[in-house]
Amino acid sequence: MPELTTRVPQPREAIRRMKEYHPPLGGRSGLRLDFNENTVACSPRVLEVLAQFSESTSGSELTMYPEREPVEALAAGHLNLKPSQVLLTNGVDEAIHVLCQTYLGPGDEMLLPVPTYSMYAVYASATDAKLVEVPAGPGFSLPIDALLAKITPATKLIAIANPNSPTGRAVSRAAILALIAAAPQAVIFIDEAYFHFYRQTVLDLIGRAPNVIVARTFSKAYGLAGFRLGLLAADEDAMLWLRRVTSPYSVNSLALACLPAALDDHTYLEGYINEILLARSQFTSALEGMGVPFWPSEANFILVNIGPLHAEFCQAMRNRGILVRDRSADPGCDGCVRITIGTREQMQRAVHFMAESLREIEWAEVAR
Amino acid sequence: MPELTTRVPQPREAIRRMKEYHPPLGGRSGLRLDFNENTVACSPRVLEVLAQFSESTSGSELTMYPEREPVEALAAGHLNLKPSQVLLTNGVDEAIHVLCQTYLGPGDEMLLPVPTYSMYAVYASATDAKLVEVPAGPGFSLPIDALLAKITPATKLIAIANPNSPTGRAVSRAAILALIAAAPQAVIFIDEAYFHFYRQTVLDLIGRAPNVIVARTFSKAYGLAGFRLGLLAADEDAMLWLRRVTSPYSVNSLALACLPAALDDHTYLEGYINEILLARSQFTSALEGMGVPFWPSEANFILVNIGPLHAEFCQAMRNRGILVRDRSADPGCDGCVRITIGTREQMQRAVHFMAESLREIEWAEVAR
Repeated sequence: MPELTTRVPQPREAIRRMKEYHPPLGGRSGLRLDFNENTVACSPRVLEVLAQFSESTSGSELTMYPEREPVEALAAGHLNLKPSQVLLTNGVDEAIHVLCQTYLGPGDEMLLPVPTYSMYAVYASATDAKLVEVPAGPGFSLPIDALLAKITPATKLIAIANPNSPTGRAVSRAAILALIAAAPQAVIFIDEAYFHFYRQTVLDLIGRAPNVIVARTFSKAYGLAGFRLGLLAADEDAMLWLRRVTSPYSVNSLALACLPAALDDHTYLEGYINEILLARSQFTSALEGMGVPFWPSEANFILVNIGPLHAEFCQAMRNRGILVRDRSADPGCDGCVRITIGTREQMQRAVHFMAESLREIEWAEVAR
Repeated sequence: MPELTTRVPQPREAIRRMKEYHPPLGGRSGLRLDFNENTVACSPRVLEVLAQFSESTSGSELTMYPEREPVEALAAGHLNLKPSQVLLTNGVDEAIHVLCQTYLGPGDEMLLPVPTYSMYAVYASATDAKLVEVPAGPGFSLPIDALLAKITPATKLIAIANPNSPTGRAVSRAAILALIAAAPQAVIFIDEAYFHFYRQTVLDLIGRAPNVIVARTFSKAYGLAGFRLGLLAADEDAMLWLRRVTSPYSVNSLALACLPAALDDHTYLEGYINEILLARSQFTSALEGMGVPFWPSEANFILVNIGPLHAEFCQAMRNRGILVRDRSADPGCDGCVRITIGTREQMQRAVHFMAESLREIEWAEVAR
C-alpha cells in the first residue's frame, strides 16, 4: 500500500469560516412549539393518498426516480402561474441554497435585514460573496431606509422573510416594491413561508418584475415538514438558471404523490389557519395578562421578551413538556424566546405552564 | 408603483456557462431499462413499514421536521463506521453538490475521467474551479497514468465512479490507492453507487486515509430511488465541513422511517443482486449471439455499441415498450446505448425485442 496522508484536505476558505446551523432537533417530545410546525396534522386527504399508495404498491413505484414536472405544473396552476415559473424544491432550504449559489460570487454582496431565518446567512456564507447584515428598525421593523442606502452595483441578492422569523413582523408591499425598483441588478427574494397566517403576497409580481423571486413552503400551514416540499416562483428566464443548479430528482416521490391532495383540501387548510389565528389572538391576550412583553406577529409564532432568565424559562417549560425556542443569540434578540402558536386548547395548556414556569424561576422579581 | 426593471438579473459567470442535465424522465412506461433502477421492487419489509406508518399515523408525524441522526447512526453501524463518519443525503446528487461546493473554488481544479456520471461535471461547473476532463483509456479503462500526470497542487477533487457509468468498468484498488497517495491535498471521491453488483469497496479506507470520501446509494440495488437516499462516508474531520453545507433536513421522514427495514433485509437484497448477476451473464451471452459489441460490466447495466443507428435502435425498442438509454453524446461513446439489467425474465423479453428492433432498422446491413 502506498504511503497515505494523515491530513484532511482543506475546504474552500468560505467553508472554513462558514456559519453553522445545528437546530436542537433531538428528543423533541411533548407539545412542540419550537419549530413553527403545524401542531396538529396534515390534511386527512394526504393520509388517504398515502394509505392508497401503501396498499396498492408492489414497491415498484419506489424504484423509480421521481418525476417532478407534472406536479410542478399542477402547483403552478394552483398559484395562477405558468409551469415554467415554478420550481418544486426539497424544502425552502434547497431553494435558498440554490439561490445563493446562482447569484452570489466573489465581489458580490447580499443584503440581509437581521434578525431573520438562519439559513439565508448560512448559505450566503458558503459563497464567496460578502454578506451585509442590516439591523432591524424599532420593534423589529424592516430597516427599509438603511437597506436602500446599502444597495450598491455589487448587490446581487436581498433576502426578506415576509412575515419574518423569529419576529413575526410583516413587510409592506411598498417597501418590497421600493427594493425591487432600487436594485434591478439584484434578486429580491421574498420568502413567504408564513404567508398563510398573513394572507398578503407579492406573488402577483411574478411575470411583471423579473427581479423578484418568491418562496412558499408546505412545511408550515400544510403540516408537511417531514415531506420536504418547498416552492420557488420566478420569472421564467430566471428559472432557467435556477433549474440548472437544482437536481432534477431533489423532491421525493411520496411528497410528489401527496402534494395534489394537500393543494386541493382548502377546507382543511382554512380550518387550520383560522384555528391558529384565533389561538394567536387568545395567546397574546394571555401574554398581556401575564405582563410578558411580546411583539405583534403576523405568523404562527410569537416572539416574547423574557429577559435575563430566558434559558431558565425554556428549561422550566421543557420540564413541563412544552418545547419553546430560545432565540436569545439572534441579533437584537437578547432575552427573547419564540413560541409557536398551536390550537386554542394547546395554547391554553401552554399559558398554564408558562405561568407556572414564570413563578418557578421567579421571573417577576428578576425581570422587571 | 415605482418603475420596475424589465431585465432578469444575471447569475454568476459559472452558472451562465454551466452544463445542463435534462434526463429524459417524461412518459416512462414499459420495461424501464434506462435509468439503472431496480426493475422489480424494494424490499417487502420497506412496504410493511410504510403500511404501518400509513395505518397508524394521525398525520402528526408528517408535520415534524425530519431528524436524521438516529438513522444515520444505524446506517453507520451497518457499514462498521462511526456515526461521525456518515452523512445521509438527499440522493447521491446532493452529496456531489455538497462535495463540489465544499472543495472547489477559484483557482482549484477537479480531475474527472470521462465518460462518467453526468452530475460530477454539472456540479463542478457550478463552482469557480477548473474542470479537467481526462478521456478513458482503451476499453473505457481508468486512465490512471494520465490522471496521475494531471495532478497539480491545485487539484482539490478527483471523482471516480466505481463501477463507472455508463461503461460498467470497475477501477482497481491499486489505482485508487495510487490517486490517494499522489494527491494528499485533494479529496478522492469514490462513488460506489453500483457497489452491490461488484462487491469490492474502499470503504475500509475511511478512518485510515483522510482524503478519501465514499458514496453509496439506496436508489439502485435497494430499489428506493423514489425516496432519495444517498450516503457519504468520510473522515470525521472532513465530515464537519460537509455537514456545514448540508441542510439538516434534506432527507425526508418517510425515507428515514423505512431505511432501517431496507438495511435489515439482507435476504431480499442478496436475492435481487443474485438475480441481476445471473441475468447479466445471460444477457451478455445473448449479445454475443446477436453479434452486438459491448463492454464487460461490473454494474447492473451494459453499454452496447450499436453504431450509427443508435437513435433508431432506441426508438424501435421504445415502440416495443422497452426503454433504453442513448449515451451517444457521452465522450468516447459515439453510437453507444446503455441497457439496464433487469431480471432474467425481463432480459429475455429485452433480447427478443432487441433482435426484432435490430432487424427492423436493418442494423446488420448498416453497422458492420
